[in-house]
Amino acid sequence: MVEPDWIAVDWGTSSMRAWGIAIDGSVLFSVASDRGMARLAPGEYPAVLTALVADHLESAGPRRDVVICGMAGARQGWAEAPYLDVPVALDELLAGAVAPVPAVGRLLPRILPGLCQRRAGAEDVMRGEETQLLGLATLLPDFDGVVALPGTHCKWVRLAGRRVEGFSSAMTGEIFEILRLHSVLRHSLGGEIDPAERWRGIAEGLAAGVAAPEKLLSQLFRVRAAALLSGKTPSWCAGYLSGLLVGADIGGQQSALAGMPVALIGAPELSRLYAEGLKLIGGTAQIVDASAAVLAGLTAARRAAT
Amino acid sequence: MVEPDWIAVDWGTSSMRAWGIAIDGSVLFSVASDRGMARLAPGEYPAVLTALVADHLESAGPRRDVVICGMAGARQGWAEAPYLDVPVALDELLAGAVAPVPAVGRLLPRILPGLCQRRAGAEDVMRGEETQLLGLATLLPDFDGVVALPGTHCKWVRLAGRRVEGFSSAMTGEIFEILRLHSVLRHSLGGEIDPAERWRGIAEGLAAGVAAPEKLLSQLFRVRAAALLSGKTPSWCAGYLSGLLVGADIGGQQSALAGMPVALIGAPELSRLYAEGLKLIGGTAQIVDASAAVLAGLTAARRAAT
Repeated sequence: MVEPDWIAVDWGTSSMRAWGIAIDGSVLFSVASDRGMARLAPGEYPAVLTALVADHLESAGPRRDVVICGMAGARQGWAEAPYLDVPVALDELLAGAVAPVPAVGRLLPRILPGLCQRRAGAEDVMRGEETQLLGLATLLPDFDGVVALPGTHCKWVRLAGRRVEGFSSAMTGEIFEILRLHSVLRHSLGGEIDPAERWRGIAEGLAAGVAAPEKLLSQLFRVRAAALLSGKTPSWCAGYLSGLLVGADIGGQQSALAGMPVALIGAPELSRLYAEGLKLIGGTAQIVDASAAVLAGLTAARRAAT
Repeated sequence: MVEPDWIAVDWGTSSMRAWGIAIDGSVLFSVASDRGMARLAPGEYPAVLTALVADHLESAGPRRDVVICGMAGARQGWAEAPYLDVPVALDELLAGAVAPVPAVGRLLPRILPGLCQRRAGAEDVMRGEETQLLGLATLLPDFDGVVALPGTHCKWVRLAGRRVEGFSSAMTGEIFEILRLHSVLRHSLGGEIDPAERWRGIAEGLAAGVAAPEKLLSQLFRVRAAALLSGKTPSWCAGYLSGLLVGADIGGQQSALAGMPVALIGAPELSRLYAEGLKLIGGTAQIVDASAAVLAGLTAARRAAT
């Protein structure tokens, strides 16, 4: 068995993932679990980690670094890793990993901090995305522009080389979910999805959102009214709702994006949606896979420390 | 016992209210129930109505008109009263009451239609508010401007005399509720409310929403971040969330409001919130009580038919 040199971990709110990394940087194994922060008490992290990686390690092997990013470092997580304040150089990430995590058998965990922005009126926080940003800065060292990280809370980040100047979190993904599950719009969204019809809705929603992001509250109700009056299908309505929210998210950033290169870090389908929306304001985005970014970031953070 | 000449009913989604009206127009009694459309099958309406008003009527009295507005006329309601298309003169409301409702004992129910706007890209519907608009047009016959009817779905209506030119529904109230109950923001909102602190949050939220309605998705996350980083209290956060949503709703209407008189029909506290927000864009609003408006509207609709 080839043994990993160290272990990389992305520990989020609803799930976690760990990779065994060889001394040459190649990935030896990848394991995942749905035991995210939301389903764990602080004392349960060591056992979850050990159970996941045990099969891949010799029991009498050497001590190994475990570099962890994400919600494991939140106050309700494994151990609090206090935020670093922006503006900040991302190389400080591992230096900032002060979380006092005791060794777990032969594993030596270190938890990376998140970032915060304390400026009154623009308070914001992130945990996990900072490591993806460090990864992006490693993969694209000359990048100087805006990075969008779509998801539950889409982060828009001004990144210059390895320096984070500032950022803003939009509740785009979470609002989609709670509208879909809990609002009057749910009556117009159920059932099986026809992909072509859904993309027609997405295109119309993106255009409406980008054109008038200030009218989001009223454009949302159109999902219901268009189903009642114009016989729009649930597939169209689901697409329109996604497109409208993403379009309004992009439209709200338009002045900050003017003339800037844009990079997207996210899951493939969501990144495609944002890329389509950015086209509508004349932008093109470089797309970076989220797993590749977080692995590159954890690797860079460990290298900075050793 | 003074017997009513007719009965006015506002039958909404979550509740209903009925008034007994004397021949001189005075209100003889008012009764209410939580049996709104959401809690009723179509066949249950007659019994609910009868049970509510029976104590106030002589069993051998004359036949009496019952004029009903609201969700009782929806497809899932008592009997469908098809929408009238805008632009429309509000006098057509009772002429449009084609819902085939059989007599209920000695009661003769008529259900008023809602309004719809079929223009592609601006589809919209209302049920109940059209009657409040008719009431406003009766109480303020020279009104020519924009009427805001805040609530679960805030309606913004271009009204000229008794003519509705067009309208737009914003999901402001419903989004407040689902964010409060189901989103990550709920962690920052619980507990007892301090009114002064809440109004400080409202003022800050109104200003932020009116100034940049296109940034609503990211300004919402500030509720959470400001609680984490700046120690904002749950009272402040609850106020900021209300103010931000109302401010963004008003900000999104700013171009349509330019120079127009504005009237507000709603519950007192919500109307005050909208009035404060309108002040920030240099507007002043005439406030009309929602119950007074619906009663005046039902009265005018009945008069038009008899």
